[in-house]
Parts: sequence; structure tokens; C-alpha cells
Amino acid sequence: MPDIAAVKAALAGQRIETPSWGYGNSGTRFKVFTRAGVPRDPYEKLDDAARVHEFTGVAPKVSLHIPWDKVDDYAVLSTYAKDRGLELGAINSNTFQDDAYRLGSVCHPDPKVRRKAVDHLLECVDIMDATGSADLKLWFADGTNYPGQDDVVARQDRLGEALAEVYGRLGDDQRLLLEYKLFEPSFYTTDVPDWGTSYAHCLKLGPKAQVVVDTGHHAPGTNIEFIVAFLLREGKLGGFDFNSRFYADDDLMVGAADPFQLFRIMHEVAKNGGLDRAANVAFMLDQCHNVEAKIPAVIRSVMNVQEATAKALLVDLDALAAAQAAGDVLAAHAVLMDAYDTDVRPLLREVREERGLHPDPVAAYAASGWQERIAAERVGGEQAGWGA
Amino acid sequence: MPDIAAVKAALAGQRIETPSWGYGNSGTRFKVFTRAGVPRDPYEKLDDAARVHEFTGVAPKVSLHIPWDKVDDYAVLSTYAKDRGLELGAINSNTFQDDAYRLGSVCHPDPKVRRKAVDHLLECVDIMDATGSADLKLWFADGTNYPGQDDVVARQDRLGEALAEVYGRLGDDQRLLLEYKLFEPSFYTTDVPDWGTSYAHCLKLGPKAQVVVDTGHHAPGTNIEFIVAFLLREGKLGGFDFNSRFYADDDLMVGAADPFQLFRIMHEVAKNGGLDRAANVAFMLDQCHNVEAKIPAVIRSVMNVQEATAKALLVDLDALAAAQAAGDVLAAHAVLMDAYDTDVRPLLREVREERGLHPDPVAAYAASGWQERIAAERVGGEQAGWGA
Amino acid sequence: MPDIAAVKAALAGQRIETPSWGYGNSGTRFKVFTRAGVPRDPYEKLDDAARVHEFTGVAPKVSLHIPWDKVDDYAVLSTYAKDRGLELGAINSNTFQDDAYRLGSVCHPDPKVRRKAVDHLLECVDIMDATGSADLKLWFADGTNYPGQDDVVARQDRLGEALAEVYGRLGDDQRLLLEYKLFEPSFYTTDVPDWGTSYAHCLKLGPKAQVVVDTGHHAPGTNIEFIVAFLLREGKLGGFDFNSRFYADDDLMVGAADPFQLFRIMHEVAKNGGLDRAANVAFMLDQCHNVEAKIPAVIRSVMNVQEATAKALLVDLDALAAAQAAGDVLAAHAVLMDAYDTDVRPLLREVREERGLHPDPVAAYAASGWQERIAAERVGGEQAGWGA
Amino acid sequence: MPDIAAVKAALAGQRIETPSWGYGNSGTRFKVFTRAGVPRDPYEKLDDAARVHEFTGVAPKVSLHIPWDKVDDYAVLSTYAKDRGLELGAINSNTFQDDAYRLGSVCHPDPKVRRKAVDHLLECVDIMDATGSADLKLWFADGTNYPGQDDVVARQDRLGEALAEVYGRLGDDQRLLLEYKLFEPSFYTTDVPDWGTSYAHCLKLGPKAQVVVDTGHHAPGTNIEFIVAFLLREGKLGGFDFNSRFYADDDLMVGAADPFQLFRIMHEVAKNGGLDRAANVAFMLDQCHNVEAKIPAVIRSVMNVQEATAKALLVDLDALAAAQAAGDVLAAHAVLMDAYDTDVRPLLREVREERGLHPDPVAAYAASGWQERIAAERVGGEQAGWGA
Repeated sequence: MPDIAAVKAALAGQRIETPSWGYGNSGTRFKVFTRAGVPRDPYEKLDDAARVHEFTGVAPKVSLHIPWDKVDDYAVLSTYAKDRGLELGAINSNTFQDDAYRLGSVCHPDPKVRRKAVDHLLECVDIMDATGSADLKLWFADGTNYPGQDDVVARQDRLGEALAEVYGRLGDDQRLLLEYKLFEPSFYTTDVPDWGTSYAHCLKLGPKAQVVVDTGHHAPGTNIEFIVAFLLREGKLGGFDFNSRFYADDDLMVGAADPFQLFRIMHEVAKNGGLDRAANVAFMLDQCHNVEAKIPAVIRSVMNVQEATAKALLVDLDALAAAQAAGDVLAAHAVLMDAYDTDVRPLLREVREERGLHPDPVAAYAASGWQERIAAERVGGEQAGWGA
Repeated sequence: MPDIAAVKAALAGQRIETPSWGYGNSGTRFKVFTRAGVPRDPYEKLDDAARVHEFTGVAPKVSLHIPWDKVDDYAVLSTYAKDRGLELGAINSNTFQDDAYRLGSVCHPDPKVRRKAVDHLLECVDIMDATGSADLKLWFADGTNYPGQDDVVARQDRLGEALAEVYGRLGDDQRLLLEYKLFEPSFYTTDVPDWGTSYAHCLKLGPKAQVVVDTGHHAPGTNIEFIVAFLLREGKLGGFDFNSRFYADDDLMVGAADPFQLFRIMHEVAKNGGLDRAANVAFMLDQCHNVEAKIPAVIRSVMNVQEATAKALLVDLDALAAAQAAGDVLAAHAVLMDAYDTDVRPLLREVREERGLHPDPVAAYAASGWQERIAAERVGGEQAGWGA
Repeated sequence: MPDIAAVKAALAGQRIETPSWGYGNSGTRFKVFTRAGVPRDPYEKLDDAARVHEFTGVAPKVSLHIPWDKVDDYAVLSTYAKDRGLELGAINSNTFQDDAYRLGSVCHPDPKVRRKAVDHLLECVDIMDATGSADLKLWFADGTNYPGQDDVVARQDRLGEALAEVYGRLGDDQRLLLEYKLFEPSFYTTDVPDWGTSYAHCLKLGPKAQVVVDTGHHAPGTNIEFIVAFLLREGKLGGFDFNSRFYADDDLMVGAADPFQLFRIMHEVAKNGGLDRAANVAFMLDQCHNVEAKIPAVIRSVMNVQEATAKALLVDLDALAAAQAAGDVLAAHAVLMDAYDTDVRPLLREVREERGLHPDPVAAYAASGWQERIAAERVGGEQAGWGA
Repeated sequence: MPDIAAVKAALAGQRIETPSWGYGNSGTRFKVFTRAGVPRDPYEKLDDAARVHEFTGVAPKVSLHIPWDKVDDYAVLSTYAKDRGLELGAINSNTFQDDAYRLGSVCHPDPKVRRKAVDHLLECVDIMDATGSADLKLWFADGTNYPGQDDVVARQDRLGEALAEVYGRLGDDQRLLLEYKLFEPSFYTTDVPDWGTSYAHCLKLGPKAQVVVDTGHHAPGTNIEFIVAFLLREGKLGGFDFNSRFYADDDLMVGAADPFQLFRIMHEVAKNGGLDRAANVAFMLDQCHNVEAKIPAVIRSVMNVQEATAKALLVDLDALAAAQAAGDVLAAHAVLMDAYDTDVRPLLREVREERGLHPDPVAAYAASGWQERIAAERVGGEQAGWGA
């Protein structure tokens, strides 16, 4: 049976990174709905992220997205974060929102466009140096929409070349995290469509290159926890972009669509050492809160990851291994389900209270008056969102 | 064996409706790429549509989208169209691009929002009266993103009520075409997610309500031609929104992703009387040309529908029926494939030449200088696109 | 807040029907694994079903499959069931395991084959008269594997004709439940592929025809609870064939693959009156226990349905409606999740104990010695399974 | 423009391997339909395969499946093949049709079962030595049905160990081809579910291990031609198991469900050197002819591959590259489609006639009287099929 004190310690020590863009407006291709109080610059995003950390106690890191979070002086931004108990996390590159990138960025047929894209990636490493960020997270929208549009193999060559140059620029304590995605915004081929492609490139690049698993980026029916376990076995799991989906890359709150899947993922993480600090797996959110209130949605998402983690930590691994070795399908399944069926909310409330936090972060945030304050104060200016 | 003269006559008589928004800018949630020469108002869209009709000879109708194509005087717009050999086609409503519609339009929990949405739909019928359009095409983005967000059944009640009011407003020669879509922009429930839901509502409304099949709006694995055949059998197929997809609602050029599927659809249409004028099936395009040149893409799309139709008309229905009755699977399949494997481009070139058209619409358009002219002339002002 | 006494009463009164074939061997096209103690005839299947009811208290009904459960005298079988506290449930027809049905049964191009199939269906109604079964459950494997193989519309005509004849034969208290399935064993078209097709036929047949939802028979991404809610609204939900799947029609234990989905389904059922006796919704299992022990798997499945039902009954519908009316997405979602996150196993243990049952049916069955007994006694003869 | 003489030479030199089991009975889990004239032993399967080669001229190789094609003396079988103009191709292992393999074979938790499985694989290499087969094709049904059932990572360890032992046994001119499959017969995890897993294992094993792409083994939406291009770029594409599907692993005739996809695959093969003898890509069929006549279905399948290859060879690669380099999406797409839209049947008829073959293999087979002969002669005995 799991040791409850150890479970609590693990939960208290967990770190979940929230994305700056989760605090801004977002939407679909049909409409971006605006909301009162949305931040207008990176500083206000950090103010909101600070609330999430204040009430959950496990979200001190904030991912930035360049150029959406571009500032004149990253040292100032970093200090601003530290003053609020935060630190700057992964730097996310953007090679998809410039008219030059219509046919791709690092895979574009035109070397001038590729140069522009690689220069942006190198600039991101410069920013990492300035912010102290350890992770460069690369997601490429590159691909094609029509059969014949471009040469699949030539694009891989260009991709490999760009990655090699960026990899060579990384400092000793910096990583390149390569994300994959089945489709969107490319609708025929995507240049890094699956974990296999990302893994193959990371293998060639070297130990500082690892795969990022975005839980919304797979084909229907894909067993994500298998991929997670496989990558952990190979030492190639760099981290997660958590969110959930019923259909495509819906970017809903993690755990909202299939909490059992999230539990199964966290079970593989926990069982295979992925919660150990040494494994250096980054647990990041990457979500769009299109119709719901943004800060409470981030809080709920952090809590959903916590609850899945708690359940994963409650799995009786000895009993599980024994039933598996005996080939007792139902008994092994029952061990796993017993943990999943447990209501871990009381346990997490205890963990919070033991750390001096309010047991219910959602209620605490609601009572804090922050939402009313930002709605009143943040008027005028341009709200942050996709592309801003 | 099909009578070639009859096939040619059918092809010459076919009508394919192009959407005004296909000439404007479009994109994904990540980026809308702008292109030189894109229209800045509904009149310029008609100018472009006129080129498509000029070179293909089968695309005289243009669907409008309200409010994107709002003008002060629709009689003027209608005359402008007629002067260019065009006529105004289906009126498409828009109940998804106003901040009020964050949680839905005709299914919104707040009756004030529903009133606003229904008023817009009634306004669309007013516009139909003014333009002489016969079809009101309704697509609702309504739905929810999270389990529990709203009451599925209550939303159906609200939907039914709104549809009934609009249906009651239709003139004798007007139809209500109800589109369905699996998901996007709603990511948990969609209020009209599949043909069954649309069919059930149309059945209750009456004979002037019919289903529209958008070829990109289905779950993976859905057999679209089955739905088409079923709806034709029931007299409930109002028309198509043609496009193609590899993944979700990719809105690629029709026939680009799976030309065999398009052929199978047109085979069911042709075999079940759907090409007859009396069947009144509207063959409309609904596409987004995100990375390719827009007018040539519409021309190519029209030609793709023509080619699929030509192949469908070449199916030897007698031989097919005989093989089917004999239970000879391979022979029946071979009859269908024989038509599909035929290169119908020479036949279509003949059809065009017999009508005094250039045999190659793409080449004719390229040679016309139109693209260069609009790129030069259409500077300043705001380009039309999603939402404009 | 839900009234716990009422919740308990509802749980105690719930009835879950188990399938006779769930006790026999089953497998995939690659292999049927045999297991010790598997029944060799319908009587031994009832013996096993009696154990499931003995330990769960909510599974008195057993679905039969004809001809797998054919006996000389159904009155004897019925008495045998009653003596064990059971009753015979839905009669399932089989028009797919005869060489005559290679190209279909009721939709076959050859009228002689259709006659044979319809005669079998009529025989099933005769058996219902003998057993007192109220439900005729029809699933047709009919369809085609290749484009062109047969005429989609003609097949619908034949289907409609067959259904009408069978419907006409039903007694006043008998129902025809029409199941749909996306694919398998047909791989191009299926003649009843989706709920819309089943619904349209049931509507034409009349009030005694209703739709059965098999939870494993949908395209990826289909929102099953929407269909359930829609059918309940229309009075056309006849019942469920419960099972679960990660991929296609995997026929795993219900609740094993996506327990949250099962909860959402049961939430729609409970909220829309589907648990009321008057609604007459049949909650049936339809599963294949290919690798796990069969009787404990059925017990676990029954418990999974109970747990999902318990959670659904715990949803605070007033709070839900209030949050929905207020348009508070996160609050409404939280009300639903609060019920789902509750560990309902203690409540169900109480319900069992109050009825004089062992609180843990799995443990009680294991302790009963039944498995050892049947393994020892049921030697010789032919084990029952798919097709036997 | 492609040189027609070279295209013809390439088509005449193409080799397509047919599977012994394609000539036997097959079916779904619901029913195996028997057909008159089906072979009763490996020799009769070769007799049928000889007809396919006789009429197509490009199918001299026959894949065997052990133990379905077990004979006492493989030298005799090999001679029997040679006497009919055939040679024995890939040896396919079977570690899924023994009761011992209920929970897996090389990944089974019990080392005794793993030993049994590995011994079978080694026996297959012995058979390769006897038959002169160069390829060992491994497909593992291994996996789990329920979360928790077994340890995903431990299973990978066992898999790696088994593969290493078998790899070590290979002769200098022998290859290990590792197939992957999303699901079925395992319904939760599959131990080699995707190309990435197969690729990672092959990379560790060494140059004699390569990936096999079965065109029916992917998640919905997977871009297969991308995988093919990627593996060719890495020198890791061992071959194909060709078939087609609308849904899951339907095992329909290749090219029947999506002929455009087959063309796109063959385009990547042709463009990236995969048709060169040096590339050593095996073009194998792996199909089940459940409802259609078997030998004509194999002939049709071979022709479908030929037609897709012919179209791929007709792609004007210079024009394609020029349009791609220019970023002209529609022009590049048009170059590809121009080849696809071509009716290549006349060209293939010419290729056949120049080689002294009948231009229409289907008609030639029908006229040969073979089907009538085997229906009359092959009576008594047990028909071959899955598992026999």
C-alpha cells in the first residue's frame, strides 16, 4: 500500500507550469470572444499567474510565448516574476504568424524564409539566456494542405538542418523540446506529425533534445499513455503540454474530457519515475479558455492535474505487479481502478492546509476579489490574445 | 451503356454555386494570411465570381453570407450580379460572430440572446425576398464545451422553437436548409451534430425544410454517400456544401482529399435522381483557400465537381444492376470502378468547346490578366474575409 | 441536493440485463480462447447468470440469442430461469451466421434469402410469446464491402419491408428494438449504420419500435450522451447495449475504457426520466470477455453501471440548472464533476447490505466456490460461444 | 515529362507478392463464409497463386504463414513452387493462435510462454533457410485489453529481448520485418502500435531490421505516405502489407477504398527510390476476401497496385519540383493530379501484350476455366482458412 506521507510529500512538491497565453483571449477560427479584465501585457499576465500560484501553491512557473510576450528588457520581466513568487519557464517560439510563413517556416522551400525562422529560434535562446529559462519549446505549424504542394523528404531535410543549428546554440543547461501534432493548421501533411518523427529527430540531435507530448495532438484512438511510457523508458520525455479534447486539438481544460485518460497518463509517469526531479519532466498546461472564465479555469486545470497525480500515487504498485505476474486480468485492472475510484479531494485539501493554503483554491480565488479588481482596472489598451 | 449525348447535356446543364466568402481571406485560428487582390466588398466578390462563371460556364449562382455581405440596397446588388451573368443564391445566416453568442444563439439559455438570433434569421428571409434567393442556409455554431455547461434537451427545445418561427416566415418558394456539423467551434456538444438531428427537425418543420450535407462535417469513418442516398430516398436532401478534408473541417478544395469519395457521392446523387431539376438539390461550395490562390482554387473546385459528375454519369447502371442482382461482388464493383478510372477531362473539354468556352478554364483564367489587374487595382481599403 | 434515501431506492430498484452469450467463449477473428468451466448449453448459462444476480441483486433478466440459445421447449427454459430467481429478457435475432447471409439477410438482393431472414425474425417473436419476453432486439450485419456491390436505396426498401412485416406480428406488449452500428462485419456500407437511420425506420413503424444504443457502435468522436438525450426527448430510446471500447466495437466491460462517458450517459438518462419504470428503457450488457474470467467480468460490469448510476443520481440538478441559467460555465461543470468525483462505492455497499447482500459482490463470488465447481463439473461436451 | 519506355520497363519489372492465406477462407469474428474450390493445403494455395502470376506476370512470389502453411519438407514445397514459376516469399510467424498466447507471446508475463514464442520465431528462420526466403515478417498480436492488465514498459523490455535473440539468428541475406498495428486483437494497449515503436526497435536491432507498413493498421487520419517517405529517407522501409480499409483493419482489396491514397503512397515510393531493386522494398498483399471470389480478387488487387504505380511513374517530377520551388500550391497540386487523373489502363494493357500476356487478366482468368475446375475437384478435405 502506498505510504500516505510520501504521497502527500510528492503532491506538495509537484510543479505545474502555466502558459502566459492561457490568461489572454483565445478562440476558434470563427470568433474570439473578449472578456473583461483580460491582461494587456506580459506583466499583467504574470499578475494573473501569481494568483493561480497563490491559491494552488504548485504553479510557480510561467511559460512565455515569443513574440506575444516580447518585452524590452527580460531581466525586468524576470524580476517582476520573482517579486510575485514566480519564475519564467519554457520559451515557446512562434513561426506561424507572419505572412512569410504561409508555406512553412523552417521547412519552407525558400531559404530566406527558413533563415528568418531559424533566426527567430536563435533569438528565443537569447531570451532564455536572459530569463534563465531552461526549455526551448518548439512547435512547428509547418506542413502542406494539398498533395503535391511540397516535397515531404526535402522538408525533413530542411527541418533537420534548422534543428541542428538551434541545438548547437543551446547552453549546457538548456533543452530543446520538440512538439508534434497530427494536423492543424496544416491539413494534408504536417512536418512533425507524431511522436515517432519527433523522437527520430531528437535522437539525432542528442541528449539535450526531447519530445513534448501535447495531449490534444493525436489521432483518434491513439494510446497516449503508451507513448509516455515508451518515451520515459528511452529517456526522451521532455514534458507535457496538458489540455483535453473530445475531437481534435480542442485545447479544453486538462482532465475535463477524459479524466480517466489523464489518470492513466499520470500512472505511467509515476510508475516509471517521471515524477522524480531527476527525470526533469516539465508538466505544462497549454489550453485555450474560449468560453469560460480564464483564471478560475487555470486553477481548475492545475487541480485536475493534482487529482490525477494523487490517484496515480495511490495505486498499490506491489498488488498491481503481483496480479500482473499472475496473469489475473481482472485483479490487476481492479487494483488500478481502486485508486482511480478514490475521491482524492479530501487528501488534496489536507495537503493544502498543511502548507498553509486554503483547502479550496477555486473558492479562495472567488473570495479574493481579484476578478472584480481586474475587470475594473484593466480598461483601455488592447487585450492580450492569440497573436498579441 | 450511358448515352454520351445525354451525359454531355447533363454536364452542360449542371449548376454549381460558389460562396462569396471563398473569394475573401480565410485562415485558421493561428493565422489568416492576406493575399493581394482580395475583394474589399460584396461587389468585388461578385466580380471575381463572374470570372469563375465566365470560364467554367456552370457557376452562375453566388451564395451570400449575412452580415459579411450586407449592403444598403440588395436590389442594387442583385442587378450588379445580373449584369455580370450571375444570380444571388442561398443566404447564409451568421449567429456566431457577436460577443452575445459566446454560449450559443438560438439555443442560448438567455431568451434575449435567442430573440436577437431569431431576429437575425428573420432579417435573412427579408434579404431573400429582396434578392430573390430561394434558400436560407442555417448553420448553428451552438453547442457547449464542457460537460454540464448546459442542458442538452432544453437546447433542443429552444432550437425547435426558433426553427419553427423562421419556417413560418418563409415564402411559398423558399426553403430552409439545415446544416449539421460534428464539432467546431463547440467542443463537447453541438446542437445539430449529425444528419439525424437535422433530419428530425426538418421532418417536424415540414416540406420546405431540408438537410444540407457539408462534406467536411462528419466523424471519421462516416459513409457520406449513404447519408446522401438515404436523404434523397426521403426527399430531404436540400443540397451540399462541398469541400474536402483529411482530418476535421479542413475546408480544402472539393475532391482534393478523396476524389473517389466525391465520385461515390455523385454516383448516389445521379442514380437517385438528384441531378434532375425537379429534385432541387443545391450544389454549393463552402471552402477556405488559406494557402492557395483563391479564384483559381474556386475554378479548380468547380471542375472537380464536374469531373466527379461526369464519371458518375458514365456508370453503366444496367450492367451495375445486373451484377448486383447476380450477387457478383467483383463484377458490380468493377462496373463502378470502370467509370471512375475513366479520364473524363477530354469529355469535359468537349462539353466546354461545344458551349463556346475555352476547354481549359484554369489556363483561360491565367491568360485573362484578371489576377494581375485586381492585384494592382484593389489596394487600400479592407480586404474581405471571415467576419468582414 | 439529492435525497440520499431516494438515491438508494433508485439504486436498489435498478435492473441490468445480462446476455447469455457473455457467459460463453468469445474472441476476435484471430482466436477464440477457451476457458475452463464455460457453459455448454442455455441452462448452464442461466446457472451462471443466477450467480451474477445472487451477488449483485440487480441482474434478474437474461437476454437470449437465437439460435445460440435454441431449446426444444422454451416453457421449460423459462421455468428453469424462474426457479433461479431469473426471467428471460430480450430475444436477439441472428441473421449473420448462415452461409446464405454472405451478402446480407433482410437486405439481400435475393428475395429467397430475405424470406428466410424474415421467417427467422418471426420465429423469434414466436419464442418471445413462449418465454414472455417483451423485447425483440434486432441487429443486422447487413451491408456491403465494396463500392458498387449493391444498391444502397434498394437495400433500404428491402429493410423497410422486412421490418414492417415483423412489426405487424408483434403483440400488444412487445417491442421491436432496432440497433445500429457503424461498421463490422460490413466494411463499406452498413444498412443501419447510425441512430438517424434506426430512428427514421422506427418512426415509420410506429410506437412499438424504438432505438437501441450500443455504446460501442459509433464513429470516433461521436457524443453518445447527446443521442441518448435526443432519443429520450422523442420517446424513442428503447434501451442500451452496454460495453466499452477504446477503438472500434471492442466489446470490453462497460465503464472500463471511459467511465466518465458512462457517467455522462447515465446523467442524461437520469435527468430525462430514463430511470423511471414508465420510460421502459432496457439496460442490457452486450460484451465479450475474451481474456478475462467471464462471470466476475459480468459482475464487475453490473457494478460499473451501478456506480455510474449512483454518481448520476448524486448530481445536484437544482444547482446545475441554476449555474446553467446563469451562463456560468465553470460552476455548471463543477456541479457535474462534483458528483463524478465522489467515491460511490461506500454508498453502494450500504445499498447492498440493506438488501441483505454481501457488500462486495466480487469477493462474495470468489468465496462462493462456484468457479472451482464449474471448472470441475463442466467437462466434456462443447463449450458455448459465438455461434453455439 | 516521364519517358514512357522507362515507365513501361518499370511496370514490367515490378514484383508484387501475394499471401498464401488470401486464397483460403477468411471472415470476421461473426462468420467465416466458405466458398467452393478453396484450397485445402499449401500446395493448392500455390496452384492458385500460379494462376495469379500466369495472368498478371508480376506476382511470382508467395508469402507463407507458419503454421498455416506447415509441411513436412519445405524443399518439396519450394520445388513445387518453382515448377509453377513461383518462389516462396516472406515467412510470416504466428504467435496468436495458441491458447498459451491469451495474454501475449513474446511480451507475455510468463517466461515459459515467451520461450515458446521465441522458439517459434527461430523455427521460422529455420524454415527460411529451407525455403530460401529472405524475409521474416513479424506481426505481434501482443497487448492488453484493460488498463492495469500488464506493465507497458516491462512488455517493451521483453519484446526487445525476444527481437534481439531472433535478430541474432538471421543469416547474412535475411531480414527481420517488424509490422505495427494500432489495435486488434488487443483493445487497450498494443505492444507495437505504431511506426515509431517499430522504428525504434529496428534501429536498436541493426541494419537487417526494417519496418513493414500495413496500410490498414493506422489510426484514422494518419498520413501513411508521410510515414513511407520518412522511412525511405531513413533506409528503414522494409516493405508493405497492402490492403485497404474504410474503418479499421478491414483487409479489403488494396486500392478499393481510397485509390488516391494508394497513388500518393506509390508516388512517395517512386520519387524516393523505393522502386529500385537496391531499395529492396517488398510489395506484399495482406488481404481477406470475405465476400468476394478469392483468386479474381487477388488479380484485381495486383492490378490496382500496378495502376497506382503507373500513375506514380507518370508524375512529371521536374514540373512538380519547379512548382514546389516556386511555392505555387495549385500548380504543384495540378502536376500530381494530372498523373492521377490519367487512365493508365491502356498503358498497362500494352505492357502486358508486349510481354505476351493477355491484356485483361480478369477476363483471361475467367476464360481459363480454373474456377470451375477447382470448384469441381476440390471437394472433401478441410478448406484452408485463418488458422488452418
